[in-house]
Amino acid sequence: MRVMDSVSGRYTCLNMNYLLLIMIHIGVGLHAVGGVWPMPQISASSPEQYPLNPEAFYFEYGRQSEAQPGCSVLDAAFKRYFSLIFPDYFPGANVRLQFSVNRPFTLEVSVDHDGCDGYPSQESSERYNLSVCAGQASLKAETVWGALRGLETFSQLVYQDDFGSFFVNKTDIEDFPRFQFRGILLDTSRHYLPVQAILKTLDAMAYSKFNVFHWHIVDDPSFPYQSQTFPDLSAKGAFHPMTHIYTQTDVQRVISYARLRGIRVLPEFDSPGHTQSWGKGQSDLLTPCYKGGTPSGAFGPVNPTLPSTYQFIARLFKEVSSVFPDSYIHLGGDEVNFFCWKSNPDVRAFMQKMGFGTDFTKLEAFYMESIVNITSTLNKTAIVWQDVFDYHERFQRRLQSVVEVWRGGCYLCEVRKATKAGLRVILAAPWYLDQPGPTHNWTPYYTVWPLAFKDS
Amino acid sequence: MRVMDSVSGRYTCLNMNYLLLIMIHIGVGLHAVGGVWPMPQISASSPEQYPLNPEAFYFEYGRQSEAQPGCSVLDAAFKRYFSLIFPDYFPGANVRLQFSVNRPFTLEVSVDHDGCDGYPSQESSERYNLSVCAGQASLKAETVWGALRGLETFSQLVYQDDFGSFFVNKTDIEDFPRFQFRGILLDTSRHYLPVQAILKTLDAMAYSKFNVFHWHIVDDPSFPYQSQTFPDLSAKGAFHPMTHIYTQTDVQRVISYARLRGIRVLPEFDSPGHTQSWGKGQSDLLTPCYKGGTPSGAFGPVNPTLPSTYQFIARLFKEVSSVFPDSYIHLGGDEVNFFCWKSNPDVRAFMQKMGFGTDFTKLEAFYMESIVNITSTLNKTAIVWQDVFDYHERFQRRLQSVVEVWRGGCYLCEVRKATKAGLRVILAAPWYLDQPGPTHNWTPYYTVWPLAFKDS
Repeated sequence: MRVMDSVSGRYTCLNMNYLLLIMIHIGVGLHAVGGVWPMPQISASSPEQYPLNPEAFYFEYGRQSEAQPGCSVLDAAFKRYFSLIFPDYFPGANVRLQFSVNRPFTLEVSVDHDGCDGYPSQESSERYNLSVCAGQASLKAETVWGALRGLETFSQLVYQDDFGSFFVNKTDIEDFPRFQFRGILLDTSRHYLPVQAILKTLDAMAYSKFNVFHWHIVDDPSFPYQSQTFPDLSAKGAFHPMTHIYTQTDVQRVISYARLRGIRVLPEFDSPGHTQSWGKGQSDLLTPCYKGGTPSGAFGPVNPTLPSTYQFIARLFKEVSSVFPDSYIHLGGDEVNFFCWKSNPDVRAFMQKMGFGTDFTKLEAFYMESIVNITSTLNKTAIVWQDVFDYHERFQRRLQSVVEVWRGGCYLCEVRKATKAGLRVILAAPWYLDQPGPTHNWTPYYTVWPLAFKDS
Repeated sequence: MRVMDSVSGRYTCLNMNYLLLIMIHIGVGLHAVGGVWPMPQISASSPEQYPLNPEAFYFEYGRQSEAQPGCSVLDAAFKRYFSLIFPDYFPGANVRLQFSVNRPFTLEVSVDHDGCDGYPSQESSERYNLSVCAGQASLKAETVWGALRGLETFSQLVYQDDFGSFFVNKTDIEDFPRFQFRGILLDTSRHYLPVQAILKTLDAMAYSKFNVFHWHIVDDPSFPYQSQTFPDLSAKGAFHPMTHIYTQTDVQRVISYARLRGIRVLPEFDSPGHTQSWGKGQSDLLTPCYKGGTPSGAFGPVNPTLPSTYQFIARLFKEVSSVFPDSYIHLGGDEVNFFCWKSNPDVRAFMQKMGFGTDFTKLEAFYMESIVNITSTLNKTAIVWQDVFDYHERFQRRLQSVVEVWRGGCYLCEVRKATKAGLRVILAAPWYLDQPGPTHNWTPYYTVWPLAFKDS
């Protein structure tokens, strides 16, 4: 997918390495509401149609609503959705419209809890009721985040006839998400994405009611996150230390843009593998690989044997925890290659000392447990890739964490195993959007049954 | 001036009703540094040129610098100025450059005070020293705001030869602004400007080292500021209640964008005149005009006779004071037409009661003093248009305020009068950028001598 920014004349390519994490509302409904996507849980519409005039269309806060004018999230959403409902409308320029409908139409929005200045969270209700009648619509939600979903739905109900007039049909909708976590992953390490491309993605997510931007911000190829504590990580590990980084200001912009759209920003700092770029700005972090008894000059995963490693991780994650307001953090843990660890005599000595024998999965478990402990001290809930669950039996009990399933094959077998072990699961496996290239067949993405496993 | 936003395909017109408030650095220098605008106070350059390679160019914080990596203002500025110094550079795509210069060049930046998370203020030093030698440059400033000015200067020193290679010459610059307040006024009431147009203006201001965005945000034609306390002001007073407003989020975006560029945002809420749009959303605020003994249906300036007026202003300005961090606020006070006040029997009775006789300037002074008292309670310094100074002798002493001179004619006579009265002055008169239309002759804008008045 190619986004051309005509103003500056520069091209930016959206990374193909992104991932659709969980789909919402899949299924077949009997009462399809024209054009609303994803399909609401319960809806009833009628052919009775009401004209809408942008000159006489109003958002209003309900009298009983806890949120009232001044609510940052909804005030901004009203402005945004007005333009989405009436595209290309410009006051004064649409003289023809003035001669059409003059009856006012009011969309009254009420929420049970204020929370206008907060962030959406794993616990946020996104439930809403929307009722459209002659001259008015009523949108009720428990939270402002639910109200945002209802505004999106309302905007999708409005359509134009051949003469450009706007209409909405009599409609009743009761809606809530099937899944509480509906994410899109962007990988900004293999391919740096300009902030504007991320913001556009957030817009697109809001249109489909996604609520988690899983920011796979760093990886082997580059480290674009500009850390306040360790500025060398991006200065030496980014594709370019100035043009291809995310400053703290950039990150804040993404978080605040996402918040206004009811989207959580979940940062992932994947380790101990996938960290080649980390090593450039932080010496002694990665494991030196050996060849024939001497260091080969290459480096492997994070070195789990040194106290300095954990001091570094603790400081980095302390910063990350305060920069990203979400109470979840993704710790990665996938695809750790043991080859380099095996080659290193210090690592082997450490294995011996710890009684791990030759089972390097125990060493990885030791590392992951240590960093999960660090993040729980910071009041964050950890998410890990399925590898961490697969390799470490004892981990399953100790770790009150969330497992993300990404490997192909029988991914539902994995979901069953992890849920059976009492863990929560995020399913990503069937929705790699870059698969199966180069000719995408989209059908499989829409025929996934995430809950079609036997839980006994 | 027309800005076309090609991405969305919409046109936006930059308002012509803007104003260049104070020019900096006017004068003729002996040692002109090629291309730096405005001209630095003291500069020396040599034909000795050093090549710059974007692949080997680095910003660094000096060891002695109080600001260090993690400084929001400078981290963001480094990223921004890298792209300004090396336009169209894209890592990896400029293979040819790789064969040219490989010697690294470091621009070391040091500031005496941290202040990275604060706002620029009337008191901020913008002084900087910039020294460019072989392989390195040193930029020293008292504040991060001064460092921003130095970065701007450095970016203007860099040039490309016919083959696209970058160079900078040996240079020494000592610079500080001639005037502490260098503003651009945008009128977003007569013509609504999309937030993006304001942000582009802030970029342009930074390039010319302007440091105050005087936001003439409301006026007779429209009230686009979405007040949290009085949402009806924009809901009923804006050109359009949804598309042509500035939400609190919009305002915060402007303030934060300006801050990163060392620009203060000075809000103007002009009253008691220029308030027709205020009346739409706030009944009983404006004075009902009379004709032949009965209300004509028209309204005049704010009604200075009612206690409710001052309660309203106090609540509005309390909000405005907390939304805009700058310690100055512009209260307007220009061009008050007494015709309507004169027609209103209640106003006449009030005049009598207060002993103002038939001198309506006393009534206006009464109003202005009241609202200046309100804003000083809020710890804000008031700025008023020269009319307030002109009409009210007694005002001159009572009001510890700043006078902005806007009327043509002998504007320096006015500056002399006001400074003689011990007031500080902002000069705007000679820099109305929409004058003299339609064929602009720019010469007069550059030949103003703001201090060419006799102060005795």
